Amino acid sequence: MNGADALTSGPVLVVGTGLLGASIGAALSSLGVPVLLTDQSPTALALAVDLGAGRPLTPADAPELVVVATPPDVAGEVVVANLSRFPNATVTDVASVKQTVLAAASAGDLSRYVGCHPMAGREQTGPIAARADLFVGRPWVIVTSGCSRPQSLSAVRNLALDLGAAPIPMDARAHDAAVALISHMPQVMSSLIAAQLHQTDPSVLSLAGQGLRDVTRIAASDPQLWTAILAANAKSVTPVLQRVREQLDNVIAALSPAATAAHATIAGTIAAGNSGVARIPGKHGAVAQSFETIAVLVPDEPGELARLLTDMGRAGINLEDLYLEHAPRHRMGVAVISVLPGVRANLEETLNVLGWRVA
Amino acid sequence: MNGADALTSGPVLVVGTGLLGASIGAALSSLGVPVLLTDQSPTALALAVDLGAGRPLTPADAPELVVVATPPDVAGEVVVANLSRFPNATVTDVASVKQTVLAAASAGDLSRYVGCHPMAGREQTGPIAARADLFVGRPWVIVTSGCSRPQSLSAVRNLALDLGAAPIPMDARAHDAAVALISHMPQVMSSLIAAQLHQTDPSVLSLAGQGLRDVTRIAASDPQLWTAILAANAKSVTPVLQRVREQLDNVIAALSPAATAAHATIAGTIAAGNSGVARIPGKHGAVAQSFETIAVLVPDEPGELARLLTDMGRAGINLEDLYLEHAPRHRMGVAVISVLPGVRANLEETLNVLGWRVA
Repeated sequence: MNGADALTSGPVLVVGTGLLGASIGAALSSLGVPVLLTDQSPTALALAVDLGAGRPLTPADAPELVVVATPPDVAGEVVVANLSRFPNATVTDVASVKQTVLAAASAGDLSRYVGCHPMAGREQTGPIAARADLFVGRPWVIVTSGCSRPQSLSAVRNLALDLGAAPIPMDARAHDAAVALISHMPQVMSSLIAAQLHQTDPSVLSLAGQGLRDVTRIAASDPQLWTAILAANAKSVTPVLQRVREQLDNVIAALSPAATAAHATIAGTIAAGNSGVARIPGKHGAVAQSFETIAVLVPDEPGELARLLTDMGRAGINLEDLYLEHAPRHRMGVAVISVLPGVRANLEETLNVLGWRVA
Repeated sequence: MNGADALTSGPVLVVGTGLLGASIGAALSSLGVPVLLTDQSPTALALAVDLGAGRPLTPADAPELVVVATPPDVAGEVVVANLSRFPNATVTDVASVKQTVLAAASAGDLSRYVGCHPMAGREQTGPIAARADLFVGRPWVIVTSGCSRPQSLSAVRNLALDLGAAPIPMDARAHDAAVALISHMPQVMSSLIAAQLHQTDPSVLSLAGQGLRDVTRIAASDPQLWTAILAANAKSVTPVLQRVREQLDNVIAALSPAATAAHATIAGTIAAGNSGVARIPGKHGAVAQSFETIAVLVPDEPGELARLLTDMGRAGINLEDLYLEHAPRHRMGVAVISVLPGVRANLEETLNVLGWRVA
């Protein structure tokens, strides 16, 4: 009954069939692992079943592994309930804050609990946004509490591997500090930037460029989910936000007419941002690599971007990254293509010859 | 000698051959308009000439239009110098802050001065980053001071049209307030977010997802340029930054253990961000439209993305937007494709039949 390729034998019970739960269920099911589902919402449960994420849990079922994928504010109590309900099962949870869940779980048999955090998500929520490949190639933090029995640790590690993720062991405190910095603070700041546009005249917003779109993309995230995440990780997020506020205060002070050394403060802030962004790893988890970019004008018609990329492929050139800049009020876009250094000149010549408008 | 299609007759003198100046020169030259160039840096000037942006200014030249494309902190004095040096010419500048330049220009013949601001830019600077199509389809603000003679106003308007931009009349104060909100504040915040990553352990940064990459992309911008911009627009930027700081203070207070109504404050902040981001216009300057997205797994090999888009084109489906999510430590990416509502189901079926892994 199990998939030949899966490390997980199952059955696996997924508690909570939102984006993460339904995605895990769909991925395991596609590998042939038996998946049982439960959700407080009958609609969400039915939808997840329809989407192929598994079948509803029945009283006779005895899961080997329980994956708690509820909202983070109830994850702790649901972990404890499942440790007690299934006395032989390993129980894990995928909440994005780990210290609070670990603390709550210690009311149960901690040897069978292993927290984890798949570093994957989307702005959309719910089972309808689920994707079996959501975790492919993503980091998957496994919390090492020091209390877990080896077979429970390997069950959670195998789950990550079955879903195509890269397991990364980390303790709960280090994890919470890490996500405060790379995920929770940026979410708050993106929301605050976007919140300033609330009452803005449309004529002003029509001047917006790609930069504003980029910094506010994650501001479309779910308020209820993020309230739970931020409240649960308040202890780690607060010092990061306070540091941002202090530096923001410095910038505001430097902009006042009475400021001394104002230019040094402002330039220092922008330069510190330069160094920070340069440290974010590029694709494939590699050290950030400097690519050369080429910008090509693409008429906004079906097949034009495909034709451009086909032309590139025929020239034997692989693109490292691509984004589209949209030209407001113009049925045309600019494809900004990143290529390995040294390839640019050849590509530019090739595209010019083929009639593309290259910068 | 002039291009048949150009509204601008020229000669046009471009003062300052950085990204904007060289791009303007290249675009006008490609239309057959005679372009004269000058720059304090002989290297930048030679590079711009090599790139086809125009020829060096000689003492005998009498430009009809002078485009000041210097750093913003010297734009005012350069405008005044050129108003006096060329007593029949219209003088414009492309600095991204307009009140300071207008105030400085009033030391000269204001009737021949018309400020403008092409809403286009890149993280890169210098003539090497120049692109003749940099302004195509972009808004181009033309500052209405009330003092300009009609022929100077139309000279600057024609310049914008020749470069493919959309002229938008606006007074200097409204312009400066608009860019403070949609460009300068987001730049400061993006830099502050990225600045927090300065000392972070690489293992922490390896957990970063697409969200962090998006919010920090513009943090790669030039410190010297941005120091000049922020200093020049301090009066308009400061109140926006203060509002962000107040709301950040509210979030920090709500995260403290003693907070009351904490969840309402945090959820309200995220929800206000939702409304704000929904107000940013989509492509073609249209009202933001809700597209449906589909995620397709793309092997990281030459030609694979082209093949996907070709398959889409054959199915008669036009993509509205596309971005690539990179899977760390995995030679595979996810293409997130936006399509018009209603098209998704058909596209998904088509791609499945053709063997693509669709979510």
